[in-house]
Amino acid sequence: MKIKFIWPGETKESCLSKLESNYIKKISRFIKCEKIVFKSRFNEEKSKQIAFEEGEIEKRCGNLNNLILLTEKGKEMDSFEFAKFLEKKLNFQSDDIVFAVGGENGFSENFFKKGMFLLSLSKMTFTHEFARIILLEQVYRAFTIIKNIKYQR
Amino acid sequence: MKIKFIWPGETKESCLSKLESNYIKKISRFIKCEKIVFKSRFNEEKSKQIAFEEGEIEKRCGNLNNLILLTEKGKEMDSFEFAKFLEKKLNFQSDDIVFAVGGENGFSENFFKKGMFLLSLSKMTFTHEFARIILLEQVYRAFTIIKNIKYQR
Repeated sequence: MKIKFIWPGETKESCLSKLESNYIKKISRFIKCEKIVFKSRFNEEKSKQIAFEEGEIEKRCGNLNNLILLTEKGKEMDSFEFAKFLEKKLNFQSDDIVFAVGGENGFSENFFKKGMFLLSLSKMTFTHEFARIILLEQVYRAFTIIKNIKYQR
Repeated sequence: MKIKFIWPGETKESCLSKLESNYIKKISRFIKCEKIVFKSRFNEEKSKQIAFEEGEIEKRCGNLNNLILLTEKGKEMDSFEFAKFLEKKLNFQSDDIVFAVGGENGFSENFFKKGMFLLSLSKMTFTHEFARIILLEQVYRAFTIIKNIKYQR
């Protein structure tokens, strides 16, 4: 079992990209961890681009029941609740755990109805690149809570 | 009138520090903006350090009624509500708008009772350095909403 992170396009902002690598390295100490970046169709019109990205995520996650999709319309949890949520998946799910963050245009309302879990990091709108880093930081934080070890900055 | 950001110690993580400067530059296009960093007593025991930091923030913000203190126990808003909140202050407050983020130990429960506004960026716990950047990003985003201009990445 591993954790997969899926999103369209590499993180462009160099600082955020560096933080991303650092957190993936940190998470990898606890569980096998894979980042799946696919090329989006950045030149197409917005709705087509979103549809393409949704298709790519769906294709790559295997079973939509294992997918945790990030959207500010999702369920909010505090860091302890999120750790419990993750721990339960680690204990009772045999398939990979898959997180997906959208591109700068987000997702369509229809995509949300497909049965995946919707997770919100905040009521506030973050840039999609920020959302990636905060997700990774929270997954790392969750493992430090689950394993009861010190959070390393 | 200006916006002040107060916190203990410079942001150590070099990437976050770079993002911090970038967002302060961006906000400065809309309003005079001042970052006030004070030296904390990092070698003292936790409770004394917190008390010292609270004292410094109180001293530097002038009137506690103008202070917006960041804590996950505060009020959550989405980015549009936050923009409205900020716009109201810009229109009806004559004193400076002051945001403060704590150090890695946060604040004491007693400090929260002093009448400042408590703002939460998320139910989740972020590192104090992350909280600074997300706050700055949200203030910048709020100005783009208030002024109805394109968000520049």
